[in-house]
Amino acid sequence: MPELRKDPVSGRWVIISIERGKRPSDFLSPTLKRKEGGFCPFCPGNENTTPPEIISFRPSGSPANSPGWSLRVVSNKFPALQIQGELNKIGEGIFDKMNGVGAHEVIIETPEHAQSLATISQKAAEDVLWAYYFRLSDLKKDMRLKYVLIFKNEGETAGASLEHSHSQLIALPIVPKVVKEEMETAKKYYENKERCLFCDIIVQEAAADKRVIYENERYIAIAPFAPREPFETWILPKRHESAFMPADKSFSSLAEIMQRVLKQLDKVLSFPPYNFILHTSPFKDEINDYYHWHIELVPKLTKTAGFEWGSGFYINPTPPEEAARFMKEARI
Amino acid sequence: MPELRKDPVSGRWVIISIERGKRPSDFLSPTLKRKEGGFCPFCPGNENTTPPEIISFRPSGSPANSPGWSLRVVSNKFPALQIQGELNKIGEGIFDKMNGVGAHEVIIETPEHAQSLATISQKAAEDVLWAYYFRLSDLKKDMRLKYVLIFKNEGETAGASLEHSHSQLIALPIVPKVVKEEMETAKKYYENKERCLFCDIIVQEAAADKRVIYENERYIAIAPFAPREPFETWILPKRHESAFMPADKSFSSLAEIMQRVLKQLDKVLSFPPYNFILHTSPFKDEINDYYHWHIELVPKLTKTAGFEWGSGFYINPTPPEEAARFMKEARI
Repeated sequence: MPELRKDPVSGRWVIISIERGKRPSDFLSPTLKRKEGGFCPFCPGNENTTPPEIISFRPSGSPANSPGWSLRVVSNKFPALQIQGELNKIGEGIFDKMNGVGAHEVIIETPEHAQSLATISQKAAEDVLWAYYFRLSDLKKDMRLKYVLIFKNEGETAGASLEHSHSQLIALPIVPKVVKEEMETAKKYYENKERCLFCDIIVQEAAADKRVIYENERYIAIAPFAPREPFETWILPKRHESAFMPADKSFSSLAEIMQRVLKQLDKVLSFPPYNFILHTSPFKDEINDYYHWHIELVPKLTKTAGFEWGSGFYINPTPPEEAARFMKEARI
Repeated sequence: MPELRKDPVSGRWVIISIERGKRPSDFLSPTLKRKEGGFCPFCPGNENTTPPEIISFRPSGSPANSPGWSLRVVSNKFPALQIQGELNKIGEGIFDKMNGVGAHEVIIETPEHAQSLATISQKAAEDVLWAYYFRLSDLKKDMRLKYVLIFKNEGETAGASLEHSHSQLIALPIVPKVVKEEMETAKKYYENKERCLFCDIIVQEAAADKRVIYENERYIAIAPFAPREPFETWILPKRHESAFMPADKSFSSLAEIMQRVLKQLDKVLSFPPYNFILHTSPFKDEINDYYHWHIELVPKLTKTAGFEWGSGFYINPTPPEEAARFMKEARI
């Protein structure tokens, strides 16, 4: 019998079709292979084909926008939002609009075209996380901005238009709906229980040990109870932290668990396309007791169709308990 | 400058990238061509390869599950939910689940494999709407069920697994999150204004006449103010109606506007894949002053990527005013 499960964070219901339980081999894998050779604006030597660097990690003394870097952050060449201009909020009868003030940046994670976030060195992965943190800390100073959404699309079917490994950030003058809802749900839970919803989930998952994929000293990776997609994975700090930050001034534990999970995913599903989204508290309320920052990693294996669109209601053919088992048993 | 727009119904914000305004020809069209010849379980003569008919439109006297029908409704061969069994709601610590009681049916819209919902006769399109209505009215009697979601995936990239033109319905023991949210927003608006939010939208859109695509005596088709995707189109009854119903006991006006909009879409975008979702009030509160049933039609032209997933926040490269103009000017 299929099962209906509710995600306590988002409130969405998911159908887990237990009887049709799909194994990793059932997913037609649009395996991601990076082809070297063609022109790539993110490769060293082509720095002049991107907008100028906002920050970069490079040997001291090496000039900006020249080769030698290990990581670059640049503006998106076709930005969805623009940093210039005053923020004007305007009503149009019943409708609300504002001009598109914000930022849209690209984090080029490695100079090596053939590498991925899973395969770069752990030091390089830590630098990616530092880049996220530095950009968040900088954009926070702009009083027009309310939220920074950091995400990564890996593979063309997940929306990546360039294959060279990169993440993106979009800084917004509003708090997006999904974040707002998560904050409200978490706040209500806290008001009721005096405990963080995510902390409670972590305690229960660790005790049940059916959906835990991996944990290290500071972080835990789980298949959530009501995943939208097969092999959806969340990475959370085990200690309560409301906003994305380096634990004890280091990102080494986070880089370790992130790369491990990505390698497990690559092993089990043969380099699947995926989306990766950092969920953190809005600037205005960064330090709080009720919200718990985390990473949501969603492989793109099924076609999200009309039903999902229309209802916010998902059908997932792989129970998370099975996905967690496959992930744990992957030899990487 | 790009513009941020808020959809008043869902509360989601959308970036309309006005400067990169994309024209219909910019969308790589995965044109849907139906290939006759292969085996199709929905074609006449193959009735025994589907589960038995729940209802069908066929000449009186012609036996069920034999050729001669003009429309059939059958259970989905691989149902996401099952109609048998008692509904059990169970807690698992912090989590909520229930067994998958419900229904999953397929409406085979025409016996002719090469036809689409746009190209069948208007009488046949009216019958599709009658089939929706009959199934809704029947499933409503099952006290375990709270909502019926009716939708259509046209084309493989929109999630259709068989190309023979069909719609689906999923009857659920819960009200899906998106519907619940729309109801709550509409209710709040009504409490504040004593008017229906959708009725107000219709009045404003008709007066502005920038996003109206087409209207007939009873219905209006608009490009919504903050569309998620290029060429997203809503069809609404002009008179306040909270639940899907035949106006004056007829579906002729609705079939007319629906087919007209689909033909315009086929003309402008060369037979794009699309999702079509019927939004109507839940069974428990079918007749009310605040919610207004409607159809949302969303062509599948862009890849919904990590950003959209993570935030419920969309980037749309085609302003609805332009989309409405292209649709209106389409010679069909």
